Amino acid sequence: MSKPIDQLKFDDKGLIPIIVQDIANGQVLMMAWMNREAVQKTLETGKVHTYSRSRGRLALKGESSGHFQLVREVRADCDRDVLLFKCEQVVAACHEGYRSCFYLQYDPASGVWKTVESKVFDPDAVYQKLK
Amino acid sequence: MSKPIDQLKFDDKGLIPIIVQDIANGQVLMMAWMNREAVQKTLETGKVHTYSRSRGRLALKGESSGHFQLVREVRADCDRDVLLFKCEQVVAACHEGYRSCFYLQYDPASGVWKTVESKVFDPDAVYQKLK
Repeated sequence: MSKPIDQLKFDDKGLIPIIVQDIANGQVLMMAWMNREAVQKTLETGKVHTYSRSRGRLALKGESSGHFQLVREVRADCDRDVLLFKCEQVVAACHEGYRSCFYLQYDPASGVWKTVESKVFDPDAVYQKLK
Repeated sequence: MSKPIDQLKFDDKGLIPIIVQDIANGQVLMMAWMNREAVQKTLETGKVHTYSRSRGRLALKGESSGHFQLVREVRADCDRDVLLFKCEQVVAACHEGYRSCFYLQYDPASGVWKTVESKVFDPDAVYQKLK
């Protein structure tokens, strides 16, 4: 029988888009990409690992901030070419300090993207330690 | 001032990944892609339009089934390269008959993807009419 990972469809770059959702309240936290190794690592460790396209390597989400995503449920879509991870989010998903990366809301009246969430941590303080 | 659409980042194929979430209960319904035209049409009409990569054209979600996605809120992420649409979903998002495309759940014990949702419509009956 084929392994669960072999039943997924990766794109021509060997990647699959993934969505992370807060299992506590259903908030969509972020969208990212995984390669085969990232899927494998995530399933093995129970912590979201992504493939960073900008850095060209596997990355443990929260590796520098400690803001891990603890996987509680893994879903695949009908085409098996997207994954949805329902997670416990430690502190926040977004490196900008917001709980979710989707903190910009389109305002049809003014035609602008407005920040509609509040920061839950200070990115300067958290990432300062690393410099 | 630049238009809201000009503040989004499209990939090298001119596409942006989008997530559709049920505004009623937070369920993630599907992931798809939009080009500039699809974003424009979606903002103008209030109904999700996608760019179908397989058909190579703009597609109104629900155009054949009547299962439209009525946009109630539009979010962008921190990098402005992913969009999140909170929608009222008519009937169901998935062409397989499920409310959400994410009806497969990974079962760590058996190592298989299991269907964990029930169909809410009969795809044969709905799409039959079109043949």
